Amino acid sequence: MNDLVERLRQVLPPEALVTDQDRIQSYRYDRAMFCPAGEPIAVVLARETAHVVAAVKIAADAGVPVVPQGARSGLSGAANAIEGCLVISLEKMDKILEIETVDRYVVTQPGVFNAVLSRAVAEQGLFYPPDPSSWEFCSIGGNLSTNSGGLCCVKYGVTTDYVLGLEVVLADGQVLRTGRRTVKGVAGYDLTKLIVGSEGTLGIITEATLALRPEAARPRTMAALFDSGRTAGEAIVEIIRSGVSLSLLEIMDRTTIMAVNSYKRMDLPTEAAAMLIAQSDAGGEAGAADVATVAKLCRQYGAIECIEADDPAEGELLLEARRAALVALDQLGTTMIDDVCVPRSRLADFISAVEQISLDLDITIGVLGHAGDGNMHPTVVFDAEDPDQAARAQAAFDKVMEVGLELGGTITGEHGIGMLKRDWLVEEIGPVAVSVHRAIKAALDPKNVLNPGKVVS
Amino acid sequence: MNDLVERLRQVLPPEALVTDQDRIQSYRYDRAMFCPAGEPIAVVLARETAHVVAAVKIAADAGVPVVPQGARSGLSGAANAIEGCLVISLEKMDKILEIETVDRYVVTQPGVFNAVLSRAVAEQGLFYPPDPSSWEFCSIGGNLSTNSGGLCCVKYGVTTDYVLGLEVVLADGQVLRTGRRTVKGVAGYDLTKLIVGSEGTLGIITEATLALRPEAARPRTMAALFDSGRTAGEAIVEIIRSGVSLSLLEIMDRTTIMAVNSYKRMDLPTEAAAMLIAQSDAGGEAGAADVATVAKLCRQYGAIECIEADDPAEGELLLEARRAALVALDQLGTTMIDDVCVPRSRLADFISAVEQISLDLDITIGVLGHAGDGNMHPTVVFDAEDPDQAARAQAAFDKVMEVGLELGGTITGEHGIGMLKRDWLVEEIGPVAVSVHRAIKAALDPKNVLNPGKVVS
Ligand SMILES: Cc1cc2nc3c(=O)[nH]c(=O)nc-3n(C[C@H](O)[C@H](O)[C@H](O)COP(=O)(O)OP(=O)(O)OC[C@H]3O[C@@H](n4cnc5c(N)ncnc54)[C@H](O)[C@@H]3O)c2cc1C
Ligand SMILES: Cc1cc2nc3c(=O)[nH]c(=O)nc-3n(C[C@H](O)[C@H](O)[C@H](O)COP(=O)(O)OP(=O)(O)OC[C@H]3O[C@@H](n4cnc5c(N)ncnc54)[C@H](O)[C@@H]3O)c2cc1C
Repeated sequence: MNDLVERLRQVLPPEALVTDQDRIQSYRYDRAMFCPAGEPIAVVLARETAHVVAAVKIAADAGVPVVPQGARSGLSGAANAIEGCLVISLEKMDKILEIETVDRYVVTQPGVFNAVLSRAVAEQGLFYPPDPSSWEFCSIGGNLSTNSGGLCCVKYGVTTDYVLGLEVVLADGQVLRTGRRTVKGVAGYDLTKLIVGSEGTLGIITEATLALRPEAARPRTMAALFDSGRTAGEAIVEIIRSGVSLSLLEIMDRTTIMAVNSYKRMDLPTEAAAMLIAQSDAGGEAGAADVATVAKLCRQYGAIECIEADDPAEGELLLEARRAALVALDQLGTTMIDDVCVPRSRLADFISAVEQISLDLDITIGVLGHAGDGNMHPTVVFDAEDPDQAARAQAAFDKVMEVGLELGGTITGEHGIGMLKRDWLVEEIGPVAVSVHRAIKAALDPKNVLNPGKVVS
Repeated sequence: MNDLVERLRQVLPPEALVTDQDRIQSYRYDRAMFCPAGEPIAVVLARETAHVVAAVKIAADAGVPVVPQGARSGLSGAANAIEGCLVISLEKMDKILEIETVDRYVVTQPGVFNAVLSRAVAEQGLFYPPDPSSWEFCSIGGNLSTNSGGLCCVKYGVTTDYVLGLEVVLADGQVLRTGRRTVKGVAGYDLTKLIVGSEGTLGIITEATLALRPEAARPRTMAALFDSGRTAGEAIVEIIRSGVSLSLLEIMDRTTIMAVNSYKRMDLPTEAAAMLIAQSDAGGEAGAADVATVAKLCRQYGAIECIEADDPAEGELLLEARRAALVALDQLGTTMIDDVCVPRSRLADFISAVEQISLDLDITIGVLGHAGDGNMHPTVVFDAEDPDQAARAQAAFDKVMEVGLELGGTITGEHGIGMLKRDWLVEEIGPVAVSVHRAIKAALDPKNVLNPGKVVS
């Protein structure tokens, strides 16, 4: 293994190679709970594609597994180190290379944080929609590799909808270019969208061309309070059925609201069992009409209060609250964040079922999520020191996925499989799809070099 | 080979098997020019997934290639029969299975025509955007397999953006289910979007779950006339730069306008070198404002006339003209339709270059296309009986792709590779991407049963 380090040292500049054991420690884990991590031999802090190529070739040659990493904000253990692996971190490849304002695309390195990219294109009057709550501390490469969602998916879709082309280092060190810079294109198989969401198991993304939109109008925001999660769920179904076009539709339950209040020193109303936050960025009268429609439907479906954010700052505050929700829940104890997506017509049933799980297993579950997509993040909060609670937490986490599948949903709307949900993947997609996954993995990575054991094993 | 037919006869109902040589003839060709087709041994008119499974297994076993077919409206030879193949036509699997109005999806068999599906969901107040000009005579399965575009892509995207999940018969007869019915989902690799656009080489689609949108507002339509293709191209660039949201932005040149006039007995203005057609379906004031912005920009960029369609019927007539353009050009001679997509900022350059090619090679090229996406269909019109003209036509066709690539574009925006552009694919994507294509093909179809020789060989 010293041999591996030696060979890396010969081809990489010193700042691109970390072998110090203390520094290596910080590259072991992403933010998932209960996912084991091994000890990497070394960490490559690639500065350019050539470093990634060299490192992958050397590792492949030595039979050492490679774990690609972005900002390690992932929630599935997908970026966790494997015992004896080489970590290749893309965090230093953080340059935005080109912003094109007529064709509306950005060419970027993968290490750029989502918020940095979003702000850079906004300065040119453009808009990169995918906005995971973690946008301030997750990388574009990580977003691509997990096909991240976010708050404005309900109107604008997810990461894969914005990827025009990629540069990818394959498991044998060859550099693949996929896609194009044009709006449309069907030349061959869609390798771009195959790489997107593959969690570092099929290739390492070293550059991406992402489609942009014209900037949206200033959003109008409102919140509605409900005295039960079920009625909130029913209101959501009606909002969706109405066809009103919202740029955001989020939900938080009382547990989550209280957590945010104490973490962010805010005073969100805690007398309600659930709060919906809705936005329209249609602009002008259309935006006002959208928000009015939502308020009317919420009242019809039993909202105890509707609050219109009069100015953008107030609206931004509500969003801040929503974005901070997971971190706020983290302050209450150990958290396990689930990520089930159900058909939107089943949201009310899902919310009721999660309440029942919480009661049955006597465990706290904070419910929050992208209500407009049916993508919910029931978050189990528990005391990890208490083995009995920990066991119930795990049971609740699994039960949430089971209910999601029963309602015709998926076990993961946006966080991915990683290590956390590998067994559940088999449950969801079945043996034929698993065998196709294995065949594709073997075709692109016959020696099982890239992130082995993640997604499928 | 009689053995193959015998085995098929044992498992398929009589109406699902065509062996009559005369009837077989009509299943040999799609609508591409100059693509050879072989003689099929038989045609399976599958009525259900089980027929496809049985036929694929028997063919694979006998080492007989399988060619899947939809409505054979393709323009690349992708659906052409191969000598000694078994054609599996999906045209009789033409039932819409379920329309869900809250979750907004439709579950359908592949043989349904695009227009039939679009009308069925419109009756429920829903909208299936992908609308190839061929919508009255192409199947959803063909649309999926070629990742079809259409007129309203400029606002709503292409087929792959609407596919939630698929049922696919693999090359060994196993039935794969991909995707989900939820809005979002990242459980495993995106097999759905890998199958989409794979032109029948990776699997046969027997069912699809497609996302729908709420119906759009009634569109407002306008047309603008220009005295040169180049200024029309410049106007398009400015329209796009302005960020105005159009649901359609098409272009036709004089050759095309005249062809439509005589084919459809219309009286489109023929004094102009190019006509733009634009639509906004934003509704109400917003829609009117969009159209006004476009008219203003067109005038600024030298439009000699702007015509607002006062009522929807008039607007529909303009679209009818655009949809009929290819068929109309067909009446003038033999046509070869190209399908280059360039960055929108290069449209004016592309249009000028095509004019130059037409002059240099002394050959008629009708220019039409989805201007808002940069996806152009320069259509070479010639006398196929005249070998010299035919040679110049072929040269022009190739030259158009060459220019497209030079301008940073792709050789195919929506029609696909099939047989027609196989050599050009290698040119565009390069050797690494070709080897990845081959690896994936081999992983999913190791015996090369499905549509061999199409896309990549
Ligand atoms: C508080 C909080 C809120 C969150 N909210 C959301 C949300 O709203 N929506 C959402 O989708 N996610 C959310 N997440 C999850 C996480 O932020 C996303 O999955 C994000 O995309 C991960 O990016 P990263 O750069 O941190 O990737 P990492 O965690 O470092 O890696 C994630 C995966 O991508 C791979 N990878 C990373 N970079 C590359 C590359 N360049 N090439 C190949 N593979 C690579 C890794 O191997 C790993 O498999 C949240 C997380 C937290 C902690
Ligand atoms: C006048 C005219 C206008 C056109 N306009 C457009 C346009 O605007 N946009 C556009 O994108 N295209 C356009 N086309 C091209 C064509 O209509 C599309 O490619 C269409 O999607 C083909 O559908 P089809 O059912 O006819 O498929 P076919 O031609 O039968 O097959 C196309 C490909 O799909 C495969 N296939 C078909 N069904 C299945 C299945 N169920 N499973 C697996 N593979 C299958 C075939 O093997 C073949 O590779 C136009 C064609 C014409 C003639």
